[in-house]
Order: sequence, then C-alpha cells, then structure tokens
Amino acid sequence: KQNYRIAVLPGDGIGPEVMAEAIKVLDAVQQKFGFTLDYQQYDVGGIAIDNHGEPLPPATLAGCEASDAILFGSVGGPKWEGLPPEKQPERGALLPLRGHFDLFCNLRPAKIHPGLESLAPLRADIAAAGFDVLCVRELTGGIYFGKPKGREGEGEDETGFDTMKYSRKEVRRIAHIAFQAARGRGGVVTSVDKANVLATSILWREVVEEVAKDYPDVTLNHLYIDNATMQMLRYPAQFDVLLCGNLFGDILSDEAAMITGSMGLLPSASLNADDFGLYEPAGGSAPDIAGQGIANPVAQILSAAMLLRFSLKQEAAANAIDTAVSKALSEGYLTGELLPAEKRDQAKSTSQMGDFIAQAV
Amino acid sequence: KQNYRIAVLPGDGIGPEVMAEAIKVLDAVQQKFGFTLDYQQYDVGGIAIDNHGEPLPPATLAGCEASDAILFGSVGGPKWEGLPPEKQPERGALLPLRGHFDLFCNLRPAKIHPGLESLAPLRADIAAAGFDVLCVRELTGGIYFGKPKGREGEGEDETGFDTMKYSRKEVRRIAHIAFQAARGRGGVVTSVDKANVLATSILWREVVEEVAKDYPDVTLNHLYIDNATMQMLRYPAQFDVLLCGNLFGDILSDEAAMITGSMGLLPSASLNADDFGLYEPAGGSAPDIAGQGIANPVAQILSAAMLLRFSLKQEAAANAIDTAVSKALSEGYLTGELLPAEKRDQAKSTSQMGDFIAQAV
Ligand SMILES: CC(C)[C@H](C(=O)O)[C@@H](O)C(=O)O
Ligand SMILES: CC(C)[C@H](C(=O)O)[C@@H](O)C(=O)O
Repeated sequence: KQNYRIAVLPGDGIGPEVMAEAIKVLDAVQQKFGFTLDYQQYDVGGIAIDNHGEPLPPATLAGCEASDAILFGSVGGPKWEGLPPEKQPERGALLPLRGHFDLFCNLRPAKIHPGLESLAPLRADIAAAGFDVLCVRELTGGIYFGKPKGREGEGEDETGFDTMKYSRKEVRRIAHIAFQAARGRGGVVTSVDKANVLATSILWREVVEEVAKDYPDVTLNHLYIDNATMQMLRYPAQFDVLLCGNLFGDILSDEAAMITGSMGLLPSASLNADDFGLYEPAGGSAPDIAGQGIANPVAQILSAAMLLRFSLKQEAAANAIDTAVSKALSEGYLTGELLPAEKRDQAKSTSQMGDFIAQAV
Repeated sequence: KQNYRIAVLPGDGIGPEVMAEAIKVLDAVQQKFGFTLDYQQYDVGGIAIDNHGEPLPPATLAGCEASDAILFGSVGGPKWEGLPPEKQPERGALLPLRGHFDLFCNLRPAKIHPGLESLAPLRADIAAAGFDVLCVRELTGGIYFGKPKGREGEGEDETGFDTMKYSRKEVRRIAHIAFQAARGRGGVVTSVDKANVLATSILWREVVEEVAKDYPDVTLNHLYIDNATMQMLRYPAQFDVLLCGNLFGDILSDEAAMITGSMGLLPSASLNADDFGLYEPAGGSAPDIAGQGIANPVAQILSAAMLLRFSLKQEAAANAIDTAVSKALSEGYLTGELLPAEKRDQAKSTSQMGDFIAQAV
C-alpha cells in the first residue's frame, strides 16, 4: 500500500504551529520515498470543547477510525482547567482514544543529544555519562482503567477508590515489546514495579521473568518504583529499556523526559496490536508561548517519523527524518529554549526548524 | 514524665553501628536535659529472621508496645533477598509495625545542607538555589493496605489486583498535619495526586481544599504526581511541604532524598494520633559498607532527635542535637561519602562523628 490516510489532530496551544512543520516534513518525504499521505484534520481537546462541547467529538473519533494512523499535537490550556477531570482536554481526549483503539503500548524514547548535555538538570559529570532510554509503558490497563473505581459511603467515611489490575496476558504482550526493543538497543530491560507491596506487581514480575526466558540474549533487572526514581538521578546512564505498568510508566517516563532537559525534542508512540497508533510529542501545549513562532517542532516531527516507522512501515522515510533532525541539532540549528541566554539571538523559529529539516530529508 | 522507655531495633547492615552512635548522643542529652531513657533492644529484620524465623517476632512487637517510642535502624541485605515479599526484612517488619501502631503520618525532611550543594545530583545552578522540603506522607492507607488485594482467575486470564482507597477522614487528618507543618516553615503546601485519572485523588483533592480553609495563611498548590516528579528536578527550590498519599509519597520522598545527594543525613518519623512513633534513617542498611566503621550515623542521630521532639516532647534536647549536627557539618566534620575523592583522607569514622556530636550537644 502506498496511499495512506492520516488523522491530523493539532489541538491547542503550540499544537497547530508545530503540526504545520511536521506536515511540511511529511510532505518532503512522501515525494522522495514514493508514497502519498492524505491528511484529514479534526478538532481535539480544548478547541473541540469550544467548537463541539466535548474534547473528543464523535466526528474526530470517526475520522481516526477511518485513518491509518493519528498524528496528535497537544491539548489543554488555562481556559479549560476548571472543568471536571473527565471533561478536561488532555484526559478527556487521550484516555478515550487509548481505550477505544486499545493502544496498550506506549513507547517514549528519551535521550540527551550529543552537545545538549548542559540542558539536563543533572550535575555535569552525571549528564556527561550520557542518557538514552526507551520507556515501554503499558497504556490501557492498571489503575487507569481497572474496575471498580468510584466513591462510596457517607460523610467522613466516604471513600474514593481505584483498582490496579493486570492479567498475565496484558503483562506478557507489553513485556515482549520491551524485550524485542532491547534487542535492537542496549540489550537490557529494567522492569519497574512495587512487588514488595502490590499483588499486581508480584504477578507482573512473574510474567516478566517468564517472558525473559524467550530472550536469553537480553539482561533483565527489576527495580521498585521508589528506587527507580532515585537511580534515574544517581546514574541514569545505566538504563536502556524501562518496562512499566501504566501508572509507574506515567511517572517514570516523565522523569526521564525531564532528565534530558529538552522536552521539546521527545516524541512518543501509542500502538495497538495491529500497529495502528497515535503519535504525539512528550511535552504539553505550552500555552504561554503559543502563537509566537518560537515553539520547537522537533518532538512533533519525530512523532511523525515514528508514525511512518510503526504504522506505515516506511522505515526509510522515518530514518531520513531522524537523520535530518540529528543534522539540525548537531549543526546547532536550534530553537531558543535549547540555547544558553547569551546565544538566544541565534535561535531559529518554529518554521525555520521545519524548513531546515524538510530540506535535509 | 521524665523517665522514658525506648525500644531500640538496630536491625541489619550498618544499623547496629549507627545505632550505637545515636545512643551515645541520647546519653549525652539525657544527662544535660534531666530525663532518663531506658533502652530495650530487640531483633528486627534479617537478624530476626535468622534468630527467630520472622522479621518482626512477637517479642519485638511486645517490646515496642511497652515503650514510649521506637528507634529503628535499618533492615535487609543480600542474604534475605530471595524470600517471598511478605517475609522480607524491610517489608515484613515495617508494614506490620505501621499497621499495628496506626502510624499514619510519615514525616521526611530532605534538604541540601549549606556547603554540601556539590553532592546533589543536580546541575550546579539548580542545587545552588537550595532545597529544603518536608514530605508528609500518609502511611497506613491507600494502595498499600486497601482491600481487596490478591489474585483471581486462571491461566493467561489470571489477574493480580490491588485497591487504592482513601476516606475523607484519612485524608483530613494527614492534611491537617501538612498545613500545620507549613505554618512553622515556608507556608506552602503542595498536594500531590493524580486527580485526572484516579477517583481516590479527586476525593483527596476535595478534602485537602476543605482543610485549606482552616489555614488561610498557608498557600495550597496541587500537582499531578507525574508533573511533581518533573518539577522536583527542574526547580526544586519551589517546594516547601509536600503532601502525598502512601504510594506517591513513597516515590516522591525517595526522589527528594536522592536530590539532596546526602541520604546518610536524612531522618524520618512515622507517628500515630497519640504521638507514639517509629524513627528511622531514610537510607537503607548498606550491607556493602557494614562493619567497616565508615557509615554516616547522622541520619540515625537526627532520627533520635525527632523521637525526642515528637514522642517525648523534649524539644530542647532535640534542638540541641540538631544544632550539634549542623555544627559538625558546617565545620566540615564529615564521613567519607560526603567528601570529594581528594579529601577522603580527612574522613571521620562512624564513632568519631558520634563522639563529636555527643560532645557538642
Ligand atoms: C493526561 C493524562 C491522563 C496522561 C496520563 O496520565 O497518562 C498524561 O499524563 C500522559 O502521560 O499521557
Ligand atoms: C519497604 C517498603 C515496603 C517501604 C514502603 O514502600 O513504604 C519503603 O520503601 C519505605 O518507603 O519505607
């Protein structure tokens, strides 16, 4: 198949402006690599609340269903912060999309790019040792979706409750993905749980051990989540692939992203068993800088590359984008937030970054 | 009352050697401040498994019941790592003690001592801004103790499950402690939850908002746990008191401890409604350096000071210990792990640290 339909969901804040650059780059590769992309744009998040009364309108969901992959920008902003949780742009769009398409596999690479070590919030010697991890997070189970969830009782005895829950098969399918990914990387999986306290984690650890037998060439370590959070600061270079359930993956992948100090460079993929997926930058909608043309489009562009790789199987085109991005970064072609104060006058705009990368592919 | 009984549980690894120094310091203050301490020592953790077949033997529990407070060392080591979770030294001793005595309030101060900024794993400019937080963690509820917890189903459909649960009154009592603590500190409470996903967190947030009305002089902020983990790295100086449930507090208090880069200095208190408490260092049993006389006793000594302050109401004696410790640290009287490699020859031994602090009180 050489013609694909992409559901484009720019969202709020900087979403639309960085999305425009990702499309620019996709346009460049589709010519070069001989496939065509049909973009269909839909409202999501805050703008969807404004235009249609809900963060994930039926037309948006239908558009996603009719597509080969979803390219997602970012959602949310102060305007919608007072809404009840399930109506909020981020939660109200992302959780239903993950559930609806069974996007159980979240891949979040986080690395410190050579030359950008000084952006990391870590001590210079720790950052210099390097950091390059892939967080593999289970995304449709655990305490996010476990039932029962709710409230009961009266007055001061009223309780709120949630259920953390994993089945063997849920753990097994995400564990296989982590081990396979480790084979193509550093060959080490660190599984993160809280098996000294949680029954869910004891089962998690058992299944991960079973899966590990199929990958004798991959080293498996286990860490408790509290210890993992500390080891990420003490010696982050030790990690390769991090395998986590939904909640621990939420926490640890954000810690890993912050460790790089360059959130604007980090893409993500959320996949189902058929390699259908949603691709989005790791950072947020950054309403404070929206509309100024200074947002970094790289995370969105690398998310588009992941889309080509995982959902469209256009590996060569994906690699071309990754290489073009590395070229931009290594040549010091950077947006302002990646530059020290005294070099801010050399900052490239959002569209200059997109132009450079589109030309380099 | 001027005569107190203290249950002393040294435990494993460096536990006994740092405990000896804490006792030395307690002996010094009891003379000076005119009260007497009757120490009763009991096995706990690995040594209790070896001597009595279980990490928390009945005699130890009975000894704790007969005392005014528990001074706990640290437990665990490679010898007992293969045991099933509930039999392991740490979990098998701490969780039952917390549950039995209803130690719902965990206080974990974490700060970067002036002069020790370079130990922090953070970038120099971030560490230089300072870091001084108090983690207030709920310790007897949440997903640690919520029922049901266990396994069900067969084969690949077998699931493990845990229940996160908080009642209004559980949230209320820990929230009051956080707000009161903030009054005596920086006046800011940051409550950490995951209210965009968890029903428990929505109730948590509601109750914390209610409690905040009683403290108009204290500022309240809310952060999602994933964002809190990031903000702790980006700009840790912004935090004062962190208020968390059991699981998020486990993660965030360990992250805060690691941020200081000097875990050997950090004490903790776990209290019930009657101010009975268990006091222990934040770090572990460090079996790799046990018996060498090089472990830092400060965390154990500061834990003893918390014991005097919270359970025995001997504030003056507690302050004297805190002041003596600050004197040691500011005069560069330090154990080896706090010194740069080229100054290691000036390192003080475990007992030298204890002697200095005992003399200084
Ligand atoms: C918006 C929120 C529900 C979501 C999550 O917790 O999964 C976000 O933090 C993420 O990681 O994508
Ligand atoms: C040993 C373990 C059960 C415990 C916890 O998770 O509470 C420990 O990590 C702690 O923080 O005291």
